Amino acid sequence: MTSTDTATAESRGAAVLLDRTRTVVTPQLRATVETLPGSIRRVAMYHFGWEDPDGRPTAGQAGKAIRPALVLAAARALGGEPHTAVRAAAAVELAHNFTLLHDDIVDEDPTRRSRPTAWTVFGMPDALIAGDAMLALALRLLAEDRHPAAAAASARLAACVIELCAGQQADCAFEARGPHEVSLDECLAMATAKTGALLGCACALGALYAGAGEEEVAAMDAFGREAGLAFQLIDDLIGIWGDPERTGKPAGADLAAHKKSLPVVAALGSGTPAGAELAELYGRPGLDAAGVRRAADAVERAGGRDWAQAEAADRMARAVQQLSRAVPDLTAAGDLLALAEFVTRRTR
Amino acid sequence: MTSTDTATAESRGAAVLLDRTRTVVTPQLRATVETLPGSIRRVAMYHFGWEDPDGRPTAGQAGKAIRPALVLAAARALGGEPHTAVRAAAAVELAHNFTLLHDDIVDEDPTRRSRPTAWTVFGMPDALIAGDAMLALALRLLAEDRHPAAAAASARLAACVIELCAGQQADCAFEARGPHEVSLDECLAMATAKTGALLGCACALGALYAGAGEEEVAAMDAFGREAGLAFQLIDDLIGIWGDPERTGKPAGADLAAHKKSLPVVAALGSGTPAGAELAELYGRPGLDAAGVRRAADAVERAGGRDWAQAEAADRMARAVQQLSRAVPDLTAAGDLLALAEFVTRRTR
Repeated sequence: MTSTDTATAESRGAAVLLDRTRTVVTPQLRATVETLPGSIRRVAMYHFGWEDPDGRPTAGQAGKAIRPALVLAAARALGGEPHTAVRAAAAVELAHNFTLLHDDIVDEDPTRRSRPTAWTVFGMPDALIAGDAMLALALRLLAEDRHPAAAAASARLAACVIELCAGQQADCAFEARGPHEVSLDECLAMATAKTGALLGCACALGALYAGAGEEEVAAMDAFGREAGLAFQLIDDLIGIWGDPERTGKPAGADLAAHKKSLPVVAALGSGTPAGAELAELYGRPGLDAAGVRRAADAVERAGGRDWAQAEAADRMARAVQQLSRAVPDLTAAGDLLALAEFVTRRTR
Repeated sequence: MTSTDTATAESRGAAVLLDRTRTVVTPQLRATVETLPGSIRRVAMYHFGWEDPDGRPTAGQAGKAIRPALVLAAARALGGEPHTAVRAAAAVELAHNFTLLHDDIVDEDPTRRSRPTAWTVFGMPDALIAGDAMLALALRLLAEDRHPAAAAASARLAACVIELCAGQQADCAFEARGPHEVSLDECLAMATAKTGALLGCACALGALYAGAGEEEVAAMDAFGREAGLAFQLIDDLIGIWGDPERTGKPAGADLAAHKKSLPVVAALGSGTPAGAELAELYGRPGLDAAGVRRAADAVERAGGRDWAQAEAADRMARAVQQLSRAVPDLTAAGDLLALAEFVTRRTR
């Protein structure tokens, strides 16, 4: 088999895993969301894509379920019973969706999963309050779970949420700074907190539910974090060079928005003429299509594209190394590897 | 002793209790808040009154600590060791302050504890994110506690937060409705969720930390809820007839803002000519000083003032009845009674 064949087989494997995860986790997730008080439930049901704004059922799907799949796969890899971790998987997905609801408010994003965001439909106050309730619901689900790992999992998820908040806060703060005022280290730390932390937490919760020891739990967390960072790097590359037909966004959307994504910050800090050109372009109030093309070209010539690709590969290598600390026989960790490959190879 | 003497003695007792609570709980609360990541910590330290917007220490005080005092007093009343419940008391205070941070955003309130609200100082996004982190921190504090009651307490606090969210959402929804479109029952349910639930939860957590059984915990919760509703009724009366010198707000501030407080809703639903007059006044876009005086007079003539006073007294009686279910010998519950008297007799 060539490496492309392997990747395709792994993607197919991941797609099956995600399907299976949704089959198991969605009923738990939905039953939990349905316990919310009426007016809050409506916002949550809309956000998950299960209802339209008027409360009529829709055929929508509540995201790809990557984080729940990581919880279940991590539990399985460490010899646990994945079905005992379904509540934990649903809790992680609830926490993830709480961040989406609030991030959309903070970033004033109009669209999520090809639909108007909840705050544009129900107003900022109701979306904010629904997010709060969803976070409380996530931690309640774990606090009410009778599994012996539930308390440790609950503490870990709560700590992770604080880290997610720090990541989101840093992201907002970076937006307000000038082109040279964000270092690559700060940017990597932000991406680790905003994206890596919850993928790490998902894996750690799976390990906890398998009864793993502290070192295995820590290694699983590190696996998820490194894979999460690789995912963010690829996502940032797609934000610049992604195919508009596949991403559903105009080409170079992140550049037009002057987003300080990882390849951009690497280019800005490169000390090259192309980096200086990019800084000049980012100093302008807006970029037209030609400006976006020039900026993308400048990121590439400044080495931002190559750096991000190499860094993503490096992070994936570190992820696998961490995984082998938790699961010495990597054949038992095939699902986790397939999921990590899936999130870093996705094209949109 | 006359009844006024008794009330004064109880207020003095409550003031001492609150002082003692702050001495014990503030160090825990502050140490916990100081674990937050830098930029979020700054917002939280400002909100609690411990720092100015630039991070310089201030002599401010982080609220009266009524909820933590209820946790410790409930634990003591049921034969528990209050010092084992200090973390739980801090968690409840954190959850309370999370609601204040987010309520100020949702209600666009400019002032809290005589200082500019956090969102006006740090911007909406940072205040929203700090509130999220504070909620996660509250539940983390309980999840990390090794007391045998910690898991049950954590589940209870998370469930309470969902109820608080429902109350806040209902409060917002009522603001948008016309004068006759909110029933007194809806308004009482909203106040129970928004104010009673957390006072009830504080008492229930104290009971849990004393190792109390389900029935005692439920009775303690009911005691806090009823006392909380009495508190809200008194607060609403103060919002109309409070002395501006003591409340720090102009006379009839709630009427000028067309707030659908409990005495107002009772008056609107009275079916009296004065109730109709009030509805007419509330139908106008704004009220000047003379209009506010006429509205206050209409609430009184429609029976809203008398009803709220009688209802508050009734709720306090029910609170004491519930308390006697949890603590048959009420002499052991003196602190709880003193706190309940304090919150319902306060003049601002």
